[in-house]
Amino acid sequence: MQGPCIITLTTDFGLKDPYVGIMKGVILTINPEARIIDISHQIKTGDITHAAGLIQETFTFFPKNTIHVGVVDPGVGSGRRPILIRTEDHFFVGPDNGLFWPIISAHQPVEMVHLTEKGYFLPYISHTFHGRDIFSPVAAHLSHGADPLKMGAIIKDPMPLRLPTLKKNEEFLFGQIVRVDNFGNLITNINREDLAQFTGKGKAVIKVGALTIENVQKTYAEAKKDEALALIGSSGYLEIAVNLGRASERLGIDSEELTGVKVEVGKAT
Amino acid sequence: MQGPCIITLTTDFGLKDPYVGIMKGVILTINPEARIIDISHQIKTGDITHAAGLIQETFTFFPKNTIHVGVVDPGVGSGRRPILIRTEDHFFVGPDNGLFWPIISAHQPVEMVHLTEKGYFLPYISHTFHGRDIFSPVAAHLSHGADPLKMGAIIKDPMPLRLPTLKKNEEFLFGQIVRVDNFGNLITNINREDLAQFTGKGKAVIKVGALTIENVQKTYAEAKKDEALALIGSSGYLEIAVNLGRASERLGIDSEELTGVKVEVGKAT
Amino acid sequence: MQGPCIITLTTDFGLKDPYVGIMKGVILTINPEARIIDISHQIKTGDITHAAGLIQETFTFFPKNTIHVGVVDPGVGSGRRPILIRTEDHFFVGPDNGLFWPIISAHQPVEMVHLTEKGYFLPYISHTFHGRDIFSPVAAHLSHGADPLKMGAIIKDPMPLRLPTLKKNEEFLFGQIVRVDNFGNLITNINREDLAQFTGKGKAVIKVGALTIENVQKTYAEAKKDEALALIGSSGYLEIAVNLGRASERLGIDSEELTGVKVEVGKAT
Repeated sequence: MQGPCIITLTTDFGLKDPYVGIMKGVILTINPEARIIDISHQIKTGDITHAAGLIQETFTFFPKNTIHVGVVDPGVGSGRRPILIRTEDHFFVGPDNGLFWPIISAHQPVEMVHLTEKGYFLPYISHTFHGRDIFSPVAAHLSHGADPLKMGAIIKDPMPLRLPTLKKNEEFLFGQIVRVDNFGNLITNINREDLAQFTGKGKAVIKVGALTIENVQKTYAEAKKDEALALIGSSGYLEIAVNLGRASERLGIDSEELTGVKVEVGKAT
Repeated sequence: MQGPCIITLTTDFGLKDPYVGIMKGVILTINPEARIIDISHQIKTGDITHAAGLIQETFTFFPKNTIHVGVVDPGVGSGRRPILIRTEDHFFVGPDNGLFWPIISAHQPVEMVHLTEKGYFLPYISHTFHGRDIFSPVAAHLSHGADPLKMGAIIKDPMPLRLPTLKKNEEFLFGQIVRVDNFGNLITNINREDLAQFTGKGKAVIKVGALTIENVQKTYAEAKKDEALALIGSSGYLEIAVNLGRASERLGIDSEELTGVKVEVGKAT
Repeated sequence: MQGPCIITLTTDFGLKDPYVGIMKGVILTINPEARIIDISHQIKTGDITHAAGLIQETFTFFPKNTIHVGVVDPGVGSGRRPILIRTEDHFFVGPDNGLFWPIISAHQPVEMVHLTEKGYFLPYISHTFHGRDIFSPVAAHLSHGADPLKMGAIIKDPMPLRLPTLKKNEEFLFGQIVRVDNFGNLITNINREDLAQFTGKGKAVIKVGALTIENVQKTYAEAKKDEALALIGSSGYLEIAVNLGRASERLGIDSEELTGVKVEVGKAT
């Protein structure tokens, strides 16, 4: 393989347990030159959708040939398949439970492989920790130049992930909050293009909970201190924020419970 | 030294303070080629037993010659010795307070050294931060190939750590919960062999708090959703879990307080 | 550039969002050889003073030519300038909002540059994430040997940071708590020299909240278990601690709210 051997990790393992350290050790034992980059180990337990979004948002910023390992795997030990996805520029290794669905649906995979070839795994495969026994060694062997096609059979039917969709009519665009970030910003599933197409040359009126925001700003600082605003965030999606404050607190709801809350965009009259 | 210069870090420093960053800087100043791998910095303050378990569970997955630095050091500045343990394949650097006792008792150390040679320390030794002043520079010099035997005198009497032991009679095996992991799984000190020896060809009945679990499963998914189960976890110990849920919540007790709670294994009739 | 290409990161991004992973990807895409070291991503949202202290306390332990990126940037997208500071041995990249003021005031910068040259940025500059669009690419190009003087115009008027100052009279030295660390230790802005000069050959009496501590110890262990004590901490500042306990709890106040609480040093009679 050309270029650096970068392996990113995204898991729901937290950092108090040995699990992440063990994965790093397994990778470095197979490929001492691998460079391991933590994306996050603080995915909420079993929250495949959150992890899928994180991998989707980050992978594209990494160099070609980066290997992205995702382990949010509530079905470990059951029948779900361990898989490898290869797109034109990147590799993804993890459980076939929807985790890579946003990648698969947006980036024509070159190949998808059901990982079965035990020569690329640890000698003993547990029923509870495939991050250690399958995904880390496969990623390490890949970073060494191993051929994905030797790791198992091609599959065509990866598990899809049900993602919130937009609904719209003449008067409204209906989306929802998909993530509340560390700053209390509410990130929606309404992207720049959807919004532009809907509002045309008019102005948007955004409603979420008891909050009504008129117009979409460019920066947080265009609102007054503690004032709620909407803008297109750094990932290209409509975001509700409070300048120098927390939008999540403004809505009076605990952060995590805000995920899924409806966002309605109307037109200013 | 042959192979990669990997240095792992396990501390109770958390990630809001400068302490971990300072240790990394000290290491990289002495050996810019060292590869620093975080195991955890979220050990509960002063919890030597937790850190000892983490180091014991992770080190074996790392390549030969890895240097494992542990800094959970409530006695820093008192008389406790700074030490270096060398086993056949790995190095361990930290305070002599029991942190490496599980390593010492399970893996015949080749040598144990009381670190006194100031040439391997920072020039000024504080009374409060030996992670910076002694352990990081010693690890960095080791990674450069320095000889442990030049760092101080051999010792034979490392501080032991009192670990929970199993008790058993004809009818019962008495262990305890030693860790509650990020998933709320209750990890006990009863290992696969103990259990097999106790139950023989019979089936186990496991009691912890108000919970009674019949039999030991292979995977989480063998239980129904939200059902409690027992299995041999990824590290080879009996673990109580709830499929797609949290066993710690099922017991109605805060995670950390569950450590030390009794686990009783009987035989199904 | 000589030596290793180390880039440190200090942000208030937390580790649940894609922001830190994205910055790492941007850096590695530009310079795959860069070595990224996390200092902390757990700065309290927008707490420039905390981050400034962390960078100041850690940078000096890193090798020459290390590049320190700081992103605590509540004014992102407003008029505040993106800047690069070069001292004799280190580089600092981030917003001009006081974050590097302790560096600037203590270490004669060789040059300070207002980053405007778009060739060193990502192609599209958002209004909300300059950590990704400006600071990471500038740091990566720097690590490749790019010349700071080509990145923008020299500035002479960096934004200052208002830091708590000491007051004193014949009888008292008045400082304050500037940080409560992971161990509940209360770190003040009174340094070793200030204290020595004030107390001379006498002994200090330290008051903070309802707590009165007589004398300054050398180590935590000089106090009895659970006894409050004062000592000069590892960074050279007066620190109030409780041996094997938490001084912050002793004062009965939540950690973060203790920042700014007055500390009074008198003389023992």
